[in-house]
Amino acid sequence: MRKISFTLLLWCPALLYAQQPVQYVRPIIGTEKMGHTYPGATVPFGMVQLSPDTDTIPYELDGKYNPDVYKYCAGYQYTDNTITGFSHTHFSGTGHSDLGDFLIMPTTGPLQLNPGTADHPENGYRSRFSHANETAEAGYYKVKLDDHNITAELTATNRVGFHQYTFPAAGDAHIILDLVAGIYNYGNKNVWTFVRVENDTLVTGYRQTNGWARTRTLYFAMTFSKPIKKYGHRNYANDVYKGFWRKFNQSENFPEMAGRQIRAWFDFDTKAGEQVKVKFALSPVSTEGAQNNLAAEIPGWDFDAVKRQSQDAWNKELSKVAVQTIRPDDLINFYTALYHTYLSPTTYMDADGAYRGLDQLNRRAEGFTNYSTFSLWDTYRALHPLFNILQPQRNADMVRSMLEHYNQSVHKMLPVWSHQGNENWCMIGYHSVSVIADAIMKGNVKGYDAMQALEACANTARYKPYDGLEWYMQLGYVPEDKNGSSVSKTLEYAYDDWCIAQVAKKLGREDLYNEFIKRSLNYRNVFDPTTGFMRPRLSDGQFRKEFDVLSTHGQGYIEGNAWNYSLYVPQYPADMIAMMGGKKQFTGHLDSLFTMHLPDAFFAETEDITREGIIGNYVHGNEPAHHAAYLYNWTDAPWKTQERIRMILPKMYKPTADGLGGNDDCGQMSAWYLFSTLGFYPVCPGSTEYALGSPAVRSASIRLENGKTFSLETIDQSEQNVYVKKVVLNGKTLNRPFIQHEDIMNGGKITFYMSRKPAK
Amino acid sequence: MRKISFTLLLWCPALLYAQQPVQYVRPIIGTEKMGHTYPGATVPFGMVQLSPDTDTIPYELDGKYNPDVYKYCAGYQYTDNTITGFSHTHFSGTGHSDLGDFLIMPTTGPLQLNPGTADHPENGYRSRFSHANETAEAGYYKVKLDDHNITAELTATNRVGFHQYTFPAAGDAHIILDLVAGIYNYGNKNVWTFVRVENDTLVTGYRQTNGWARTRTLYFAMTFSKPIKKYGHRNYANDVYKGFWRKFNQSENFPEMAGRQIRAWFDFDTKAGEQVKVKFALSPVSTEGAQNNLAAEIPGWDFDAVKRQSQDAWNKELSKVAVQTIRPDDLINFYTALYHTYLSPTTYMDADGAYRGLDQLNRRAEGFTNYSTFSLWDTYRALHPLFNILQPQRNADMVRSMLEHYNQSVHKMLPVWSHQGNENWCMIGYHSVSVIADAIMKGNVKGYDAMQALEACANTARYKPYDGLEWYMQLGYVPEDKNGSSVSKTLEYAYDDWCIAQVAKKLGREDLYNEFIKRSLNYRNVFDPTTGFMRPRLSDGQFRKEFDVLSTHGQGYIEGNAWNYSLYVPQYPADMIAMMGGKKQFTGHLDSLFTMHLPDAFFAETEDITREGIIGNYVHGNEPAHHAAYLYNWTDAPWKTQERIRMILPKMYKPTADGLGGNDDCGQMSAWYLFSTLGFYPVCPGSTEYALGSPAVRSASIRLENGKTFSLETIDQSEQNVYVKKVVLNGKTLNRPFIQHEDIMNGGKITFYMSRKPAK
Repeated sequence: MRKISFTLLLWCPALLYAQQPVQYVRPIIGTEKMGHTYPGATVPFGMVQLSPDTDTIPYELDGKYNPDVYKYCAGYQYTDNTITGFSHTHFSGTGHSDLGDFLIMPTTGPLQLNPGTADHPENGYRSRFSHANETAEAGYYKVKLDDHNITAELTATNRVGFHQYTFPAAGDAHIILDLVAGIYNYGNKNVWTFVRVENDTLVTGYRQTNGWARTRTLYFAMTFSKPIKKYGHRNYANDVYKGFWRKFNQSENFPEMAGRQIRAWFDFDTKAGEQVKVKFALSPVSTEGAQNNLAAEIPGWDFDAVKRQSQDAWNKELSKVAVQTIRPDDLINFYTALYHTYLSPTTYMDADGAYRGLDQLNRRAEGFTNYSTFSLWDTYRALHPLFNILQPQRNADMVRSMLEHYNQSVHKMLPVWSHQGNENWCMIGYHSVSVIADAIMKGNVKGYDAMQALEACANTARYKPYDGLEWYMQLGYVPEDKNGSSVSKTLEYAYDDWCIAQVAKKLGREDLYNEFIKRSLNYRNVFDPTTGFMRPRLSDGQFRKEFDVLSTHGQGYIEGNAWNYSLYVPQYPADMIAMMGGKKQFTGHLDSLFTMHLPDAFFAETEDITREGIIGNYVHGNEPAHHAAYLYNWTDAPWKTQERIRMILPKMYKPTADGLGGNDDCGQMSAWYLFSTLGFYPVCPGSTEYALGSPAVRSASIRLENGKTFSLETIDQSEQNVYVKKVVLNGKTLNRPFIQHEDIMNGGKITFYMSRKPAK
Repeated sequence: MRKISFTLLLWCPALLYAQQPVQYVRPIIGTEKMGHTYPGATVPFGMVQLSPDTDTIPYELDGKYNPDVYKYCAGYQYTDNTITGFSHTHFSGTGHSDLGDFLIMPTTGPLQLNPGTADHPENGYRSRFSHANETAEAGYYKVKLDDHNITAELTATNRVGFHQYTFPAAGDAHIILDLVAGIYNYGNKNVWTFVRVENDTLVTGYRQTNGWARTRTLYFAMTFSKPIKKYGHRNYANDVYKGFWRKFNQSENFPEMAGRQIRAWFDFDTKAGEQVKVKFALSPVSTEGAQNNLAAEIPGWDFDAVKRQSQDAWNKELSKVAVQTIRPDDLINFYTALYHTYLSPTTYMDADGAYRGLDQLNRRAEGFTNYSTFSLWDTYRALHPLFNILQPQRNADMVRSMLEHYNQSVHKMLPVWSHQGNENWCMIGYHSVSVIADAIMKGNVKGYDAMQALEACANTARYKPYDGLEWYMQLGYVPEDKNGSSVSKTLEYAYDDWCIAQVAKKLGREDLYNEFIKRSLNYRNVFDPTTGFMRPRLSDGQFRKEFDVLSTHGQGYIEGNAWNYSLYVPQYPADMIAMMGGKKQFTGHLDSLFTMHLPDAFFAETEDITREGIIGNYVHGNEPAHHAAYLYNWTDAPWKTQERIRMILPKMYKPTADGLGGNDDCGQMSAWYLFSTLGFYPVCPGSTEYALGSPAVRSASIRLENGKTFSLETIDQSEQNVYVKKVVLNGKTLNRPFIQHEDIMNGGKITFYMSRKPAK
């Protein structure tokens, strides 16, 4: 790592932009334990995520949950010693699993069509590998497959994965296309698979699954750089008898394969050092779409050129933010976090705009990019607000994509957790409305109609059959005896309702404002003054007797306990603080959260995070308390926000494979890091206000899409000087620890005066 | 039945056309035993065949063959006492099964979602019925469902089935949509099913199956004449866990259902005599396509108007041939046969031309109607030749459809047996080439290029991996030790090759003519002079020792024995006769075929036909010998052709439910009846010649698409006067028992002088 001169850079911002930030990206960060990131090749918001899988799922589980598979949500675990192959779709940082489509594996030696086991890779097509022979960069991945003596390299464009395999001399070189392989916690999800060998270099097909996405079909077109010598397949499913197909030998050189569980193989002769390349294009609508994507994005066979193109795309996006860090490692943390935030939502359409809608119809995106992979319970908090600064055009298209989802929804609901033409209904709330409100309130309305968006929000919030919503609308809270996780739902519905009210107010819809501003106060209905916590309430109006403020299970919460979740009133922190006993008492309460000692059992039962993801009782590895450290800003001790942020950052984000304390959750964890590192955070998306914390860089510069630049500089910054003495915005000293969205978007300069001592 | 005056009609042909031939159509003919026809509602060549099913398949058979299901190829058996419901797709007359999509059943009383059994219909949704309360007409079907006290009426347009249910007073009226039900010999074929309740009268969805068609998806849109009160579904499959769907009660009023085995129900309140109507549209490409078809074809709710429209369409097509018969019943036989020939091939595209190709891509038919359901081993013989007279435009579009299949085929082969975007490879040969040659030789080239068609034929005939073809090309015959049914294949390939040669000659492609005319002689390679039969030969050149000339199993034949199949050299009857010992010996041989006495075991093992489908050793219920009775025309005893034809006609075609002696085979059996009844037959499709037999009508008149009329009259016709003394064509006496295609298509008149005595 080059050491960068502070003074030089301060005066030469141009140099900062020339840094080729790709060099600081370490896709390997988060691939060990709970990060659930993947190390493979992709481009910003790309449809293809071509990445090695070290294990995926057992062949058949008949729908039973397999806890061992949880750690393979992204297909790869750093501590594994074998690679099963390279598949083309991966979530980044999720806590549920799907995808892992179209696993390709090059092998030598006798043909083996089963993956084998990690203990005995020699019994299958998988291979041992070593991290010493592994390179993972933004847009590029390389590994030596020891068992086959093959060097595999991967790169990608938006819709095409590009494989380059360097073979030894072999008369039995195979490339396996495994359509049985896939990622899913509940066994094999295949509904149908189909493969056509169109000619001796082109293969097309599709895979239809019933996984986390209930009804998903993904199409492909793959092409080889040299002609196939012979090919074949085996169907591992006991499919229904298929008429008169017996008249052919279907297992070899039969160009049309179909069945529920297909593994196909393609054979080649190779000379020593010969490269066999594979271009593998995806499409959400058809094999024809995939072929068009292939032709449009990678017409030739120059692997290095495509790698450069992919990394150029990363440099372009990453260099929009230039930073000068305190420690060299922070450059790695910063650009890797930025990289992680640009992995999803993912493009979900062909080069010509065609995609499969939620209604299973083939649609065409006209005038916008259609995105998918909306992990909204996570990402409404900081990721989409980050996009309103760094990627406003893309974020507007994401809003547009959510509205198209709404139009196609038979429920007439905006997405909850959606991917690839499916709603998986994961987690709670209707946080699309937060993303939409945040965009509208921040003036990021492009390519969609704000009033229609408001209607969509209101209708979504009124869909009674959804998750206790009818009770909520009737009683003002979700009763725990009728619908679990009732406190979490009540709090989040109330926040979402506030978002709708803000938009209604802005657009002059008083009727809707009145309807939803009233609902936004519903958090009050689950506050129990006797305990000082939000508490599950029953349909008879009483609080439930049993109440464990530490447990995250069965206590009316989800992915959080009463300590963490009771703080969730981002729309009215002052009111919440008053309700909880006033500023002083609340400050002490918050201190306890961060400092209390808990029994080991607590850590064992907390989901989705490592023990390192918890500080005291503060759970950073899950999202509900992501705004918590900033709440001191509403007390008399904003310096405690500064202290906590600077304490959380290095603890929770490390430049190592196990450096993430919890699931990255499609970039939400990384977005928290980026905001907090830059010194401000959107405590309440849907408002235009950011709470200030303590920047953890020496300086930063954000090149905005509107052509303006927002610069941040620090005075007396150091690892010890975590407190902010004074903040000057465009020459004016701020008298409260908040800035507005327009302060950023208008360009300008913010200066933080740092100190070793808190400004009490 | 009205008795029709012969003399009146002879002088008033206009009256004949005004007969409303629909009145003579009895769709019930062939629904008992082996006919495998269906009694329900459809229009000529329609995509929807809305028909009652009396039983279909057991719920799960795990791919094992269920012989009991064979008789339900068309879903309905006349001797059954219960109806399970009304499904929208049916083959007519096939010996293999598929389709039976989207079974609808109206019920009253407690909701029952399983069909129950024939013995205990009260345990399920099915109902008893009686033929006394049943009406089956062309385009209309009506039945009383006794167990539910509901009168069901059905009619159809091309792509929409129209149900009219007259309910009793009921607070528990149900309409069940069973996506589990279907027709297939090998157990439940469902791959996936999907249902969306779009609003309180509109439901859409699809069903994907792996049956005889390996990968078939059919989409629907159904609409009710009154709003649904409530609805729900049950998934009978043990599908993989579906994420967070648990947060809804999915079983009731949840508008999006998916899974492998869905049965949905829709509830209504009904008053006594209230009619609830259902319009059910199909599409091969999407639910949107189905909705468009629905709107295009049945915008309103007037059931009687649609019924009239459907029957008008039938009258229009049926009245192109006017006949005056000898017996009144023959009017029924004739128009029912004509009806049966117009049932398939079936339309396979949306109103806007969209259809799913063999390559699983959505295609659009531009300038032609895309057809499917090509049972070519059967229908090349007489059905397509019949279409070249009665339906030349449709037949040209069928050729075009086959060429599009070829273009989409990864094998680059024309269809063998194809339906709904799938090739099922059933039976043998590549008889598309016969259909194409017949069309080209008869000048019916519209909307396709003859030279391209020739190339497609030649490439199909050269696809080596297909069914022994590589051996055939190498040895001049298919060796039985390498590929079964070798004699049948050799004979049919040789005939098909002759067809290609004729087209090549006509188009001036000498290279192709030489290649294929040589192959057309390959029948000689399997003739065994020592036995006088075609005989299985081995790859070493020897005839196989074991040889049973009566058996149809394992003797080198399929659906025929050596007696029947050895006559299969339609391209060179004279050469065959010479090879078999000359005219005299051959005449005796043919006599034996029709008159020999056979043991009962013979009948038991013959496929697809009843005992009544066999005359002596002549098997009319299967196709290979359909031309046999006409072969006397090449001997010195054409009068024996006349005698046999007039003997076969009344034996094999009766106006009763069990009136067909074998599978109608998509109209081939009926086409044989029509040609033979009209006095001529296309012994060798691909030539322009018809062999004359003995007409079984008093007179006939064919209104051709080209505006001309071809009339047939008889002199001294009677049931006894089966011999033809003289034939006069447009005033000229014929000197041989053959006419040419142009003799018909130029219009004119043929007169048969009949006699009680043969013209020896």
